[in-house]
Parts: sequence; structure tokens; C-alpha cells
Amino acid sequence: AVPVPMQVSLAEKGNYRHFMAKEIHEQPEVIARTLSHYIDVGSGTLRDGAVPIDFSQIRRLSIAACGTAYYAGLVSRYWFERLARLPVDLDVASEYRYRAQAFPADELALFISQSGETADTLAGLRAAKAGGQQLATVVNVPTSTMAREADIVLPTLAGPEIGVASTKAFTCQLATLACLAVKAGIDRGTLSPLDAEGFLSALVELPRLVAEAVTLEHSIERVAKLVAPASSALFLGRGTSFAVAMEGALKLKELSYIHAEAYAAGELKHGPIALVDEELPVIVIAPFDDLFAKTVSNMQEVHARGGRIIAVTDARGAHAIGDTAEELIVLPDVPAFVAPVVATIPLQLLAYHAAIINGTDVDQPRNLAKSVTVE
Amino acid sequence: AVPVPMQVSLAEKGNYRHFMAKEIHEQPEVIARTLSHYIDVGSGTLRDGAVPIDFSQIRRLSIAACGTAYYAGLVSRYWFERLARLPVDLDVASEYRYRAQAFPADELALFISQSGETADTLAGLRAAKAGGQQLATVVNVPTSTMAREADIVLPTLAGPEIGVASTKAFTCQLATLACLAVKAGIDRGTLSPLDAEGFLSALVELPRLVAEAVTLEHSIERVAKLVAPASSALFLGRGTSFAVAMEGALKLKELSYIHAEAYAAGELKHGPIALVDEELPVIVIAPFDDLFAKTVSNMQEVHARGGRIIAVTDARGAHAIGDTAEELIVLPDVPAFVAPVVATIPLQLLAYHAAIINGTDVDQPRNLAKSVTVE
Repeated sequence: AVPVPMQVSLAEKGNYRHFMAKEIHEQPEVIARTLSHYIDVGSGTLRDGAVPIDFSQIRRLSIAACGTAYYAGLVSRYWFERLARLPVDLDVASEYRYRAQAFPADELALFISQSGETADTLAGLRAAKAGGQQLATVVNVPTSTMAREADIVLPTLAGPEIGVASTKAFTCQLATLACLAVKAGIDRGTLSPLDAEGFLSALVELPRLVAEAVTLEHSIERVAKLVAPASSALFLGRGTSFAVAMEGALKLKELSYIHAEAYAAGELKHGPIALVDEELPVIVIAPFDDLFAKTVSNMQEVHARGGRIIAVTDARGAHAIGDTAEELIVLPDVPAFVAPVVATIPLQLLAYHAAIINGTDVDQPRNLAKSVTVE
Repeated sequence: AVPVPMQVSLAEKGNYRHFMAKEIHEQPEVIARTLSHYIDVGSGTLRDGAVPIDFSQIRRLSIAACGTAYYAGLVSRYWFERLARLPVDLDVASEYRYRAQAFPADELALFISQSGETADTLAGLRAAKAGGQQLATVVNVPTSTMAREADIVLPTLAGPEIGVASTKAFTCQLATLACLAVKAGIDRGTLSPLDAEGFLSALVELPRLVAEAVTLEHSIERVAKLVAPASSALFLGRGTSFAVAMEGALKLKELSYIHAEAYAAGELKHGPIALVDEELPVIVIAPFDDLFAKTVSNMQEVHARGGRIIAVTDARGAHAIGDTAEELIVLPDVPAFVAPVVATIPLQLLAYHAAIINGTDVDQPRNLAKSVTVE
């Protein structure tokens, strides 16, 4: 963890009350900067050499990371499978490094870390190196140990992140991983040039869509008043929205100390529904996509048992959900591909405002350090 | 869900207050019965034909299941890797069935379900069948749909399970999966005959060791008094103990409605440690194995922040943990291979007694059904 001199830190906060607020609001800009490293916006194509990986030569991708970066990996798993039919193994680095793995040579090992110094992720990288695998890293600090030790460095250009709970680093990780998934689809012949163009132009729109999502802040402050008094909360989603739910729960837990937990919505009936009562806020990530109807049926189960639903959706979804939800957070209409990035924004804002209501230390939550550089 | 006629159900409860208590206490017997289906206890070898799979012909194992059965799969992932260097993909069935998967022909798809009727797991099985994969199922009801539709049926012999929260079905799933892992190690040449014999004799001892663990009930009643008033709890572990922590948290959640969540202990510092205060019970599964020292260091972090630690360990572990834990649950000394089965027992008893203290309906927790046969 790099200490921030007080004067610099005050100066850098600008007009914001907390670094976290500043970093949430910076996201359109830093996502655009990260994307422009990978995409030539003029031609709408990937820049030559920006992703120096030939995915046609890779049988599987193996991803390890910790905390928020792990959830970025979880989103990307769905992307790599859908766009490139590339199977992905994913594990938290503290488990990955100690498992009895085979490290096949036809797999690419990918490690994600904001700092590039995360102890368990770095140890995982070194284990994969010892196993003879090719190593790539998605990293925000280009001078970090992981950047030095990996064969392939895929930078995020989020700039320094001061808030302990990651926000802009996460969405920039997603932007980078999305570019990788498109490259994988092109290399493996699962995306036509036209398909690839469509996905890349969705990415190019992302900064604007994220900026729109940030403008929801006022309505999210209202929702935060509902969530802040709870001792416990559930987050639900399917597919990429499950991964977003995981990250949303982590943010709320880190910042407001509310015991928030995320589940794949389909697991609801296999246990967590026992927690549902009239006190429990249930935050459901449900964009109007091909899993929407399934998620709505889970919402109805929660609703029937008196649970208080906050749905994060879009205009079509909001129309279909209607009164089942107590609160609706309505995102702009976005292509399904980039929806996880956009849906993350209100969850960051929700955690931020719940923390402010609860009077916790937003930029330095108790017990947490910015980078976990010891095991 | 098969309705149980009232008179039968009363008769079957025997001297126990709840079906769950009966089923917890039945475990030594039903684990022995399940094991004797796979192992010839006389010769200490696997029975010919009991596991009709040649693991030398399989490149990967892909496991899907829901709820408790998923956690059985999670334990087995570590076993298959360690004993047989067989890579395992694992997913909850409600995600597995909707992912854009490749279904490679050199993988075996394995589905785990007590009832054999779990809607998402069955749908996953059918998706893998449509994808052309060979199908195996670990199932407790031999006449079930999954048993009929799979190519290979690996029965658990737990007998009818009436308590909604699974206990004996889970440990019998583990016993079966352990036999599979040994068979995989033999087939793939990663276990010598002597190694295989050692693992099988550890399994043969399991019913006795589980019976010993059940005798801890009295001391666990005391621990339950500490846990029952909490609104929230954390479960931590590494490796197979992480999987056991997941199952322990699910049991407590299902039965006592305490919001229990499990984490891989290495993830503690990446978020959940923010929840730690002087109210929070933290249940740590820490047998004295090769990850013990790492887990103890996580315990110390919790302890330093005032968290109340309940450690589930063995005699050597208890000696090393000392005062860091407020309560110690000391398991019999067992080989590391079978430790996850034995460590499960006190967590079942803890959830059971916390539920009794809290006055919840042990055999029929609110909102839950025994088999989730609709999506």
C-alpha cells in the first residue's frame, strides 16, 4: 500500500467529498482512455498489437484474482464463452495457488490486479510460470511486479485509485477484458467481422452510457435510505448479472458493513430464500436480456414472501417488473454485451450513499487495506 | 417433492425430536452402506464395475449441481486434482445450463442431486447430453429422472432424507465422490496401488470417525448458544475446508435464518474483514493440514479486530490455535483426505442446535422445499 501524502490527497479530491465519489465520476473518462488503448475509435477496429495474444492457439483460459478483480474475471468468463467459445477456469488466487494443478501448456494463465502487487495473485502467477504456462496480466500499475513478471501486459488506464474499495479500476478491468473477448472471438473465428464491429462499437459507446448511469445518483440516494438501516442484504442475478451482483454485494459490505451476499438467482430456492422476510432488501440485477424472465420469476418468489425488492433494470425491464419491486433503478438501454459495466455504476453509488448514511469511513473502511501485499 | 404421510413420518422419526437429528445420527451407518457399494472392505479395493468410468480416457470432469450438492462437487474438485491430476470445471446448475458452452467430447459431465429431480441440474444434464457428452450422475433416488437419463449412475445409499436441509445425503455424496477420485487416480496412474490402498482404508475408517464426531454434540450445544443470537456469521476455510465452510454456512442460513456466509479464508482481507466486529461469530474450519498455518494467520487477523472465533480443528490444531479462538471444536485425528466429511458433522449439529435455540422449524425451514423440481 502506497501512502498518500495528505496535501496531495486533499488536492486530488477536487470538488468531491471522498476519493470514492471522484473515482466513480471519473469512470466515463478512464474507461474511454482504457478503451482507446485497445480500440482505434476512428476505424472501430482493435489496434494492431494492443492484445498480443493469438487466441486460436489457446485451448482454455485460466483466470485467477482476488476480491473485485476476481469478479471482473467472473464477468469475462461469460464473455469469453459467448463471443469466442473459449472455456475459462476461474478461481480466487488464494485457492488457485495452493491447488494441485496440472498447468497444461495449451492454456493461457491470466491474472487480474489493480496494484499488480496482490500477494496471492502474484504467487499464483509465479506458480503458473513454474508450471510452464504463458502468462498474461490485466493490471493498473504498469511498473508493478506482476507487470514485470508476466509475458503479456494488458494495461488498464484507470489512473491512481485512492479509495480502498475499487470502482474505476474494476470497470476499466471489464473494458479491457471485453476487448480481449472480442479479440478471442475474431482469432477463433466465432465472430464475423461484422459481429466484431458491432461489439466494438458497443464498447465505444460505453463511456457515454456510464456517464448516463452516473446521473442516476439522485434516485439512488433515495434507495440507499431503504438499504442503509438493514443489517443484511441479498444481491441476485444470472449470467453476467450474477457477477455484477457479487461485486455489488462486496461494495456494500466493504463500505457500509451491511452483510450483503450475492447468489446466482437460480440458487435462491436452494437455501438463501430462508433469509427472506419483510426486513431484507433484495437487490436484483435484471436487465431485459435472455435470462430476464427467469430472474423475474425469482423476484416473484421473494416478493411472495414479503422481501423488499430493489430491481436494477432498463426501461423494458421496468415495465415488465412493475409492482413486484419496491424500488426500480432504471438504466439506459444498452447492448447486452456492455450491460454489466453499466449496471455496476448504480451499485457503486448505492454502497457509497449507504455508507454515508451509516457514517462509515468511505475512503478507508475499517480493517481494509488498499492493496493486500502480504498473504 | 414427495409428500410424506404423517403416520409414516412419525414412526420413522424414532426417538429423535426431528428428522434432521435422526439423519445426522444415521450418517455412520449410511456412509458405511454407501462405501460398501464401492469398496470391498475385505480386500480394501474398489469393487469391479462399481465405478464404470475409465478416467484415463477423460481430459476433464465437468460438474454441475445446486445447493448442498454443489458443495459436494466443490470438495471433490480438490480431490480429483490432488489424487488424479484431473482438472474439474464446476458450476451451479442454474448458471451451467444457460452458459454458452462448448461441451468437448473428451470431458465427462457429472451431475449431483439427492432427489435426481432438481430442475436446473436435470436441465444441465440434458444440455450436456444434447452437446454429445458422456453423462454420469451421483444420485440418491435410483428411480429418479436423472438416474434414468444418465449413462452412468453412481448411487448414494443414504436412504430417504426427510429433513429439508440435507445432511446424510451430502456426506454420502462425499463418500461416493471420494471413491471416484481414488478410481480416477488409479486409472490415470497418479496413485500407486499402495497409495490407493491408503486412501481406501481411510475411507473404510470414515463411519467410525463420523460416529466419533457425532459424539461432540454436547459441546456443540454450548457453541450454538454463542452463535444463535447473532444476526450474521462468517465461515472460513481453505481448500476442501473452504468447501466445508460453504456447506456449514448454508446449513446455518437454512435452519436458523442467521445470515451466514462462507469465504475462502484468503479472500478475507479483500472485503469481508470489514464485517468483523465484537458481535460477529467467525467459524473457521482449520484441521492441522498443509494449509493450517495460512488459516491460522487469517484467524489472527479476525482476532486482532475483536471477532469471536469458533475453530473446528483437531488436537494438534487446537494446541496451535490456543487462545485465538473463543471456542474450539476438536475433531478426532483423521487423514486429511477424509477430513472434510468429518468436519461437516459439527457444522450440521451447530446449525441444528442454533435453530432449536432460535425456535425455527428444523425439518421444514420457512420458504424452502425439499426438492426444487421447478425452476
